[in-house]
Amino acid sequence: MARVTARQTITRIELGRPTTRRADSLAAEEPLEIRVRRAPGTAAPLAVTMRTPGDDIDLAIGFLLTEGIIRDSDDVVTAELCAGDQQPNTYNVVQVTLAAGVPEPETDPTRNFYTTSSCGVCGKAAIDAVRTRSRFDPTADRASIAAATLALLPDRLRERQRTFATTGGLHAAGVFTFDGEPLVVREDVGRHNAVDKVIGWATRSARLPLAGHVLVVSGRASFELTQKAWMAGIPMLAAVSAPSSLAVELAAEAGLTLVGFLRGASMNVYTGADRVLA
Amino acid sequence: MARVTARQTITRIELGRPTTRRADSLAAEEPLEIRVRRAPGTAAPLAVTMRTPGDDIDLAIGFLLTEGIIRDSDDVVTAELCAGDQQPNTYNVVQVTLAAGVPEPETDPTRNFYTTSSCGVCGKAAIDAVRTRSRFDPTADRASIAAATLALLPDRLRERQRTFATTGGLHAAGVFTFDGEPLVVREDVGRHNAVDKVIGWATRSARLPLAGHVLVVSGRASFELTQKAWMAGIPMLAAVSAPSSLAVELAAEAGLTLVGFLRGASMNVYTGADRVLA
Repeated sequence: MARVTARQTITRIELGRPTTRRADSLAAEEPLEIRVRRAPGTAAPLAVTMRTPGDDIDLAIGFLLTEGIIRDSDDVVTAELCAGDQQPNTYNVVQVTLAAGVPEPETDPTRNFYTTSSCGVCGKAAIDAVRTRSRFDPTADRASIAAATLALLPDRLRERQRTFATTGGLHAAGVFTFDGEPLVVREDVGRHNAVDKVIGWATRSARLPLAGHVLVVSGRASFELTQKAWMAGIPMLAAVSAPSSLAVELAAEAGLTLVGFLRGASMNVYTGADRVLA
Repeated sequence: MARVTARQTITRIELGRPTTRRADSLAAEEPLEIRVRRAPGTAAPLAVTMRTPGDDIDLAIGFLLTEGIIRDSDDVVTAELCAGDQQPNTYNVVQVTLAAGVPEPETDPTRNFYTTSSCGVCGKAAIDAVRTRSRFDPTADRASIAAATLALLPDRLRERQRTFATTGGLHAAGVFTFDGEPLVVREDVGRHNAVDKVIGWATRSARLPLAGHVLVVSGRASFELTQKAWMAGIPMLAAVSAPSSLAVELAAEAGLTLVGFLRGASMNVYTGADRVLA
């Protein structure tokens, strides 16, 4: 079965003290292959991601949604962990059967996000590609959150990180209401996987777009995470650490609120500050 | 020109104090397309990575080396930022011309690392694939480093992070001798890119394998970073944060020393502890 942690004997060195041997818990990392088919076709591998086992169906669905391959759960006929092909470790393969009419996914390794652009490979082209793909417009979502509530969310995210407590080695992502209530929290060795697991859960629960919610992440805010928020119709992304320049540009373009350095009683609001009530 | 930081006006909120507007620096993030050709063929896009501009040739060469597409700098005829195709932003494209006889790279998006395996997609198959690809055997490299020297390296890495100081938003990777002397340090919004920049620099400087050196990274130690260390013949990977289970398994298999939670005067040694003198 899939395991979320692994045990390991380690050598612990503290300068000036005797070296010891002790047992330690590690965050589990295993490859997950996402295969896609359209009935009655055969399944083709679409991607392999290194992830922490668990919530793998959510991860696959969230990946397909945020990559623009599916629009909602109606585009998926079945999604299942593979079995029956006489191979061990089949819990590391998720096979998704798409509904009739869903276009075949792109399998170009460069992901084609810039090919329709007139400016070569650049941030503007990357942003244009997301705008083309997302069917949600966060600008219409005018609800706001109290800064004092927002300041509580990193601790609430951490409290729900069960595996981090034992391994110290996982990223977390969570969706919270603007009242500060958690909807879903997930952990993973890859921060993009943690976000895909959260969004996949919301997709399968038919909760998209996630208007009036904030996506909180334990690390930095990259272009990729901002893209995922937009694809799921989430109007606000809040990160404990720094955002990148392209994350800020994409958030401005989308009408998303982007918060960074959300620590203790303070935060930086990069875009859409009107949604945060100081 | 490529920019390493970008300026942005932000809203700064501190609970209980007046909200202010101020200028802030962001870590730049832009897509880089890596194109590969064999003379006199045409170039095909191989990958797009979101990276901090700068040291892009090193990044491309390091990526090709750690993916097993090239073995050393002799496999590369030219590597250059594209120009002359009437497009702006061409500094976001690196074109690499491979020497005759270098096999065509795989462009399967699943990267094929498991397809020769008998056990489906699993960690063991991923490890087998790296073993097949790496031409270096770190087990032969028996030099050691003093734990007291190792403990100094995170600070030495941080001191050389010029952009982090202004943005707080970059990962760093550095190669140090076992005497603690820095060979090369690079920063990037993506930690895998920071490592590729370091290894690409070493490849172009004809310094592989990096025997008697340690690769220090500012974040966690994943399977991917351990793979990159092995591909470059680096016998030791030291991370400020936690390793994953598969990073530890791969390091054990390769004969690499893997150090985690390298903070202050203490560290955890997961594999190859005989290379660390307490």
